[in-house]
Amino acid sequence: MIKEFVNSLSTVKETNPVVHNITNYVTVNDVANSLLAIGASPIMSHAEKDFPELMQIIKATKGSLVLNIGTLDDKRVNQMLSAGKIANDLDLPIVLDPVGAGATSYRTETALKLLKELKIFVIKGNESEIQALVGESNQTRGVDAVETDSNKMDLAIKAAKQYECVVAITGKIDYISDGTFSYKVSSGTKELSKITGSGCMLAGIIGAFMCIGKPILATTFAISLLGLAGELAKENSKGPGSFRYELFDSLANIERDFIERRLQIESLR
Amino acid sequence: MIKEFVNSLSTVKETNPVVHNITNYVTVNDVANSLLAIGASPIMSHAEKDFPELMQIIKATKGSLVLNIGTLDDKRVNQMLSAGKIANDLDLPIVLDPVGAGATSYRTETALKLLKELKIFVIKGNESEIQALVGESNQTRGVDAVETDSNKMDLAIKAAKQYECVVAITGKIDYISDGTFSYKVSSGTKELSKITGSGCMLAGIIGAFMCIGKPILATTFAISLLGLAGELAKENSKGPGSFRYELFDSLANIERDFIERRLQIESLR
Amino acid sequence: MIKEFVNSLSTVKETNPVVHNITNYVTVNDVANSLLAIGASPIMSHAEKDFPELMQIIKATKGSLVLNIGTLDDKRVNQMLSAGKIANDLDLPIVLDPVGAGATSYRTETALKLLKELKIFVIKGNESEIQALVGESNQTRGVDAVETDSNKMDLAIKAAKQYECVVAITGKIDYISDGTFSYKVSSGTKELSKITGSGCMLAGIIGAFMCIGKPILATTFAISLLGLAGELAKENSKGPGSFRYELFDSLANIERDFIERRLQIESLR
Repeated sequence: MIKEFVNSLSTVKETNPVVHNITNYVTVNDVANSLLAIGASPIMSHAEKDFPELMQIIKATKGSLVLNIGTLDDKRVNQMLSAGKIANDLDLPIVLDPVGAGATSYRTETALKLLKELKIFVIKGNESEIQALVGESNQTRGVDAVETDSNKMDLAIKAAKQYECVVAITGKIDYISDGTFSYKVSSGTKELSKITGSGCMLAGIIGAFMCIGKPILATTFAISLLGLAGELAKENSKGPGSFRYELFDSLANIERDFIERRLQIESLR
Repeated sequence: MIKEFVNSLSTVKETNPVVHNITNYVTVNDVANSLLAIGASPIMSHAEKDFPELMQIIKATKGSLVLNIGTLDDKRVNQMLSAGKIANDLDLPIVLDPVGAGATSYRTETALKLLKELKIFVIKGNESEIQALVGESNQTRGVDAVETDSNKMDLAIKAAKQYECVVAITGKIDYISDGTFSYKVSSGTKELSKITGSGCMLAGIIGAFMCIGKPILATTFAISLLGLAGELAKENSKGPGSFRYELFDSLANIERDFIERRLQIESLR
Repeated sequence: MIKEFVNSLSTVKETNPVVHNITNYVTVNDVANSLLAIGASPIMSHAEKDFPELMQIIKATKGSLVLNIGTLDDKRVNQMLSAGKIANDLDLPIVLDPVGAGATSYRTETALKLLKELKIFVIKGNESEIQALVGESNQTRGVDAVETDSNKMDLAIKAAKQYECVVAITGKIDYISDGTFSYKVSSGTKELSKITGSGCMLAGIIGAFMCIGKPILATTFAISLLGLAGELAKENSKGPGSFRYELFDSLANIERDFIERRLQIESLR
């Protein structure tokens, strides 16, 4: 698994995939910098007139489209649908980050609408968000994660089967499934939840790893990379400010040796 | 005062209040990270469909609504009015940051409109901004503060009486009044004015401290905390870039010992 | 040239020009912080009601208007036209950053529209972007620079003559021309391209230097300053995260000694 992970990271750095993000204005800068740190090329555009040509660029670079509903309104949703349809026509991978689904019905409905009208390749969310997508109820605390005792792996598998795509449930431990194959990632650190944007960065990084052509591994490796970079950043930081810049340094510089010592991916099926 | 300050900071960290910010796109990321650093939960949403449910979350967590007109247009103003009315119906605290009032008539009029149509709990601004709200004229230099010789404490008291809320005038020294009780905070450092977003962060942090239930103390303590964190950050930084990340570290890590040595709150009435 | 550069930087710090940016939401925070770091006063507003008064503030402070099409839509373009016309009526300098021109026809057409309807003082772009503006075709890779073997100096001169303004083509080496006089800047480091926002910051910094009154020197010096600050930041950083905060420190603190040792401006005509 270590070898495949390292090779995939190299593939990202060599391919420089263009990742087109239609995302929120809170963490958009972090997403762009995290993509640059790992060797991908970020594009942010919500202009429908841009989409047909941008999608050709994405196709040419084995890139992807990432939809993040962190700060949304009806106009933005329509732009996401418009971009997503072009992406689908070109068989481009789409990653969905249903930020705040479950916290408000507008967010849940928007995520469901995107899932209904588009072929999504990967959904990445915390437990509350994924629960909302499969119709389970749970109390959510704004857009932040609420850990419960329910079986997250089962939830990931259920959601993956329902939407016929890869589903990743993030938290202290991360669960990834495509309905058939499942992985559990234990790399990571709680400091990632003490800064805004780590979830949004992850969606972007998944988008970059989609260039390897295997959505479930792309998702598992992206989660692992961010987790490992977080562990490395933690070693050199003393608070959320220094952790944040160290995270970008770590994403760019993480070495095979550290990966070998720390990577914790468990294949479950 | 030190004990009450330290207890209030603990209350924020234990309560984890959800602070909903309708704010500008320049410093929104800084506001989110500063709230996370002190243990609050930031939400940013301008979607009117989100508001009813988000306000319930705010209520449940003793949170607040923060309105910041840093980058505004008529649509955003209407969203602020819409959110504010729901907040008022639920008796939720609202903090207003009238960025650039006095610099342009549109900004002054917008701030006055929000003050007329909503019950605002705290107004936080620099001298020029607060002068504009009470109808005094002054030259302003864009959205940055212009210090003058006028008596800022009197201005804070006047504005507090006029709008029946807490008014904070920030600057080298900060003046806070609810019309009856007044405080003067001398903690702080000029480095805070050399980065963008310190004023916007302050509005957010005031929003977090509103969970203690006493608007004038919440405001005074929030201003003190940012000032102290700035002083601590300055000790470890060598320019605006390092100051900025140190500020987030300091907001998260500031210790009782430092607070005891440095807190400078003066009760004036 | 060193003396004139140092004097110009001092003029920026003493004049504190207000630079009004209508720019993208990805890097707007970086632009604001880079302007503050060098002693300028950033304003970001897209509200047409703000423009008449803001332009008077700009005029009073020898400031400028910077238009950056990084994230655009038709509404934003109209706001740029509206602000630009007021700026032109007041003879205020306008800097245009045609982000992504050549990557999509919408971006190319938008840049051409702004150039047709407004008097632009400086255009700053990478080779692909400037090629698109003069009707040369090239493949672009999203909004990132693609270096080709064509003669960039000739391209800068051609574009400068066509649009009767200063044109800067950025890359490993930067080429600046007003059609008559031309400069080549070799200061800089590739780390600047590993973070998002360095190009947007540069457009803002050019806007600040416009207070010296000589557009071609303002542009050449702004490019040199960012390049030198990048070189200095590189010495103290170990990845894109630390490079980024060091860049702001360096912009604020760069000293005459470093400038004298490293400044590489070549006058070509």
